[in-house]
Amino acid sequence: MIEGISFQDQIPNNHCFGCGTKNPDGLQIKSYWRSEDEAVCTFTPLAHHCAGPTHYMNGGIISTLIDCHSVCTAIAKGYQMAGRRIGEGETIWYVTGKLEVSYIRPVPIDQDVELIARIETAKEKKITLSCELSSEGDVCAQSQIIAVRVPVSWFG
Amino acid sequence: MIEGISFQDQIPNNHCFGCGTKNPDGLQIKSYWRSEDEAVCTFTPLAHHCAGPTHYMNGGIISTLIDCHSVCTAIAKGYQMAGRRIGEGETIWYVTGKLEVSYIRPVPIDQDVELIARIETAKEKKITLSCELSSEGDVCAQSQIIAVRVPVSWFG
Repeated sequence: MIEGISFQDQIPNNHCFGCGTKNPDGLQIKSYWRSEDEAVCTFTPLAHHCAGPTHYMNGGIISTLIDCHSVCTAIAKGYQMAGRRIGEGETIWYVTGKLEVSYIRPVPIDQDVELIARIETAKEKKITLSCELSSEGDVCAQSQIIAVRVPVSWFG
Repeated sequence: MIEGISFQDQIPNNHCFGCGTKNPDGLQIKSYWRSEDEAVCTFTPLAHHCAGPTHYMNGGIISTLIDCHSVCTAIAKGYQMAGRRIGEGETIWYVTGKLEVSYIRPVPIDQDVELIARIETAKEKKITLSCELSSEGDVCAQSQIIAVRVPVSWFG
């Protein structure tokens, strides 16, 4: 368990299905730095997050976890680069430009999954990340994400 | 509206979050051939499928729709190549090996989305597809999917 307040509990006005604290019907993931450029997330799948067979996780839920954990890590990095705490001052927001996921092995639904997102390159307008999802120590999915900064007006 | 029975209503024992008829808490997408190698799907987003702002769709739900529509199209193609109706005889099943999604523009949550999956290459063990997701006639996401055949024992 990582100490401190999750990224999501500091990001304001987030209704996102995957990561919004304001979405009671969403996945409500929680992400934390474990170093300056690496963030972790642990998620407990629910029964209805299954694939065709009920004992494996759905690939779409897997990609949602990867996407949201990575984009929240990009947002946290954006604040870190600006020298501000998450949520402090003008809102910083990134969205996914591109997501690539390789599914390596099935993910058991009855175990927690662990995600590690790593910042690969970071500029104000674009952050690239890699992200791995593991179950019981085995890497089950590997991914690359391009996160793109969008203006606050995106919230229209 | 395309006539006939959807792929999902013919695929047996499918509990998948995105496409399973046996998952009452899932997205329950419906896919149909519109030609020998092209399949379509229309989906009505729910309010909690939103992104950070409530008026756009979450990228993870978008990737789930693309993934499930494409894999169901691969399964349908598998039966087509075997000269059987979907669900007839020994179960044919494909899973996602790789998913690449480019998010081109935000997807309004208050409109239906349309997906078109196209078979690019088809062999028994591996089918590659492209898939586009559109809203009000504008392409919002483009993707490439590699679907891999798995044995029935995968359902173990």
